[in-house]
Amino acid sequence: MNDFIYYNPTKIEFGKEKENNIGQYIKESNIESVLLAYGSGSIKKSGLYERVIASLKSHGISYEELDGVVSNPLLSRVNDGIKIVKEKKLQAVLGVGGGSVVDSAKAIAAGVKYDGDVWDFFINKAQITEALPVFTVMTLAATASEMNGNAVIMNDETKQKYSIASVLVNPVVSVVNPELMATVSKDYLAYSAVDIIAHSIEVYFTASTHPNFNSRIVESIVKTVIQTTEILLENPDDYDARAEFAWVAIQALNGLTPAGTGGGSFPNHMIEHSLSAIYNVAHGAGLAVVMPAWMKWYETQNPAQFKRFAKEIFNEEDSSKGIEKLEAWFAKIGAPTTLKAAGIPRSGIQELAINANELACIWSIDNIYSKDTIVEILEKA
Amino acid sequence: MNDFIYYNPTKIEFGKEKENNIGQYIKESNIESVLLAYGSGSIKKSGLYERVIASLKSHGISYEELDGVVSNPLLSRVNDGIKIVKEKKLQAVLGVGGGSVVDSAKAIAAGVKYDGDVWDFFINKAQITEALPVFTVMTLAATASEMNGNAVIMNDETKQKYSIASVLVNPVVSVVNPELMATVSKDYLAYSAVDIIAHSIEVYFTASTHPNFNSRIVESIVKTVIQTTEILLENPDDYDARAEFAWVAIQALNGLTPAGTGGGSFPNHMIEHSLSAIYNVAHGAGLAVVMPAWMKWYETQNPAQFKRFAKEIFNEEDSSKGIEKLEAWFAKIGAPTTLKAAGIPRSGIQELAINANELACIWSIDNIYSKDTIVEILEKA
Repeated sequence: MNDFIYYNPTKIEFGKEKENNIGQYIKESNIESVLLAYGSGSIKKSGLYERVIASLKSHGISYEELDGVVSNPLLSRVNDGIKIVKEKKLQAVLGVGGGSVVDSAKAIAAGVKYDGDVWDFFINKAQITEALPVFTVMTLAATASEMNGNAVIMNDETKQKYSIASVLVNPVVSVVNPELMATVSKDYLAYSAVDIIAHSIEVYFTASTHPNFNSRIVESIVKTVIQTTEILLENPDDYDARAEFAWVAIQALNGLTPAGTGGGSFPNHMIEHSLSAIYNVAHGAGLAVVMPAWMKWYETQNPAQFKRFAKEIFNEEDSSKGIEKLEAWFAKIGAPTTLKAAGIPRSGIQELAINANELACIWSIDNIYSKDTIVEILEKA
Repeated sequence: MNDFIYYNPTKIEFGKEKENNIGQYIKESNIESVLLAYGSGSIKKSGLYERVIASLKSHGISYEELDGVVSNPLLSRVNDGIKIVKEKKLQAVLGVGGGSVVDSAKAIAAGVKYDGDVWDFFINKAQITEALPVFTVMTLAATASEMNGNAVIMNDETKQKYSIASVLVNPVVSVVNPELMATVSKDYLAYSAVDIIAHSIEVYFTASTHPNFNSRIVESIVKTVIQTTEILLENPDDYDARAEFAWVAIQALNGLTPAGTGGGSFPNHMIEHSLSAIYNVAHGAGLAVVMPAWMKWYETQNPAQFKRFAKEIFNEEDSSKGIEKLEAWFAKIGAPTTLKAAGIPRSGIQELAINANELACIWSIDNIYSKDTIVEILEKA
């Protein structure tokens, strides 16, 4: 078992109607003004917007708004947010929405406290040393952004989709009410399931050591995702399945699964970021394409763990059967498993590989993931 | 799935030689003086004491000492600590040792900030609203006190062994170096294993709801405890097994396992506290006596979960076989499984039941655990 630090100071307020207390949670941190960031306005249709505003008002918290945060969230909108916060001298950022909104909130929170260009953090030109407090009300379970310090932002000028990771942007409090997640489409539920599985297995397969407990946690997450996704596709109103799905989404990427493994790399996310960036594919859909291809390519490099995965998740003795069954399950729940199914032409592979290799350089795994290797992986998709 | 709050702000510094950085971790919290609490002096024999002192000194942190903290730690010594902290105006409490030392550190940290008798917190006469920061260097894996807000203290006048629970006394930083735990005797390793299993299964069996993910986490913990204990009894120097044992000990009682279950009660701990208080039995040894008896008594009240336990842990279809196998495993690793084996006469049952029922009243579960019921359970032991 490798040395590690485990530190996750985010408080999760999990359960029904907890969004009605968001003003109280913010007030308890002695904050009196926030930037309220959200997306396309679906929170207005659902009534969530009014409930959040009412809670802020009843606790005397003033707010400015940043709407129009899109999936694969844009750096330009982050910069808009930074400008508003600086002008209005706001004390915190409240993201109400899915991972994209929360990631934008984090980037704004860090960017406000930095004199240079916030993108510097994403290209490792600067380190985050300070940030405004972040609060969230989640409407989608997938990214675990509600309980980690990660944010992925798309530079709309350079078409680079890069990330930051700092405990300084961990949300102070995140509201996770599974009821708010019940309106997600079946497509996006499937993409979220794929994303959660990807978060779990990246380190599971790529780590240098595999403590049994960590492997068991990952397997517990994957089993629960499969089980609850199938229930929810049949019956979107099953609260318990929705709640478990939301909770394991958080556990998949809040620091628990890699503790003691020595850490791993995130090659599937790395390659997928290029699919999203260039073809605007939904992140989970892109992962469903990349993951089986990557697993087939990587299988021989960690045969014991692939064998374990096949046995524990699908009760198969043969490791390649485990990959086949996962791919088949992705297809069954409605996620694309080939570039073609995701609407990406074979002719696009070269450009994708060049873009993904740039990220491999930033993440310092370009020694493994050369452009040619990424081409080889994508050819399998 | 029930509503819940998950909040655990303790930072775990896990790994080799991390105790040499304790001064730095404390300094990072802008603290300049601590009460150093420890036990019988084994940390002096091992050289740990010198290393901790050296780290404190090199970071300019002054300290006063409170030695002689015993297992089943005493209220009188807690009061000694409170007195020293107040007199010397110390800013934090550093516990170096096992659960007893850390629990004492927490009680001191809370007591210093309270004008009344610190015991008021234990008998629900007052609530903790403020506490000094607590830091720890752990030498024993069992209680998870390094990553929770619990403390169990024995009132040496009244013979009551009661507890507190508040996130305000969660350690700020805990050093968990598995190497420091390698000198534990085989007896105490076995008792620790029993304690960790008890922490995991109390809520697993008594909760009102059983989300699959929570059950899977508990089963992952129990499987890992069984596996690593067997390795360590054979080879105490197996670092990886020692490290996994230490990490699952933490996961068993850091708030993760009950999240969403609606919470449960701790009847085994409740009854065991009387064995420790009256007969000074080691806590884990007492639990090995109480747990199989309690399980046999409780089995019919949650048949599905007992069946699940038997299947998942011991691959047995019959739930009573699961209990039998657990009891046999306790015996195999050297823990007593009967009152007789623990040196407690049958004639002591009445007094134990009266004492345990007092705690049942404090914990508000006396409607289930009347004196007669506790007698009935202990008769099975």
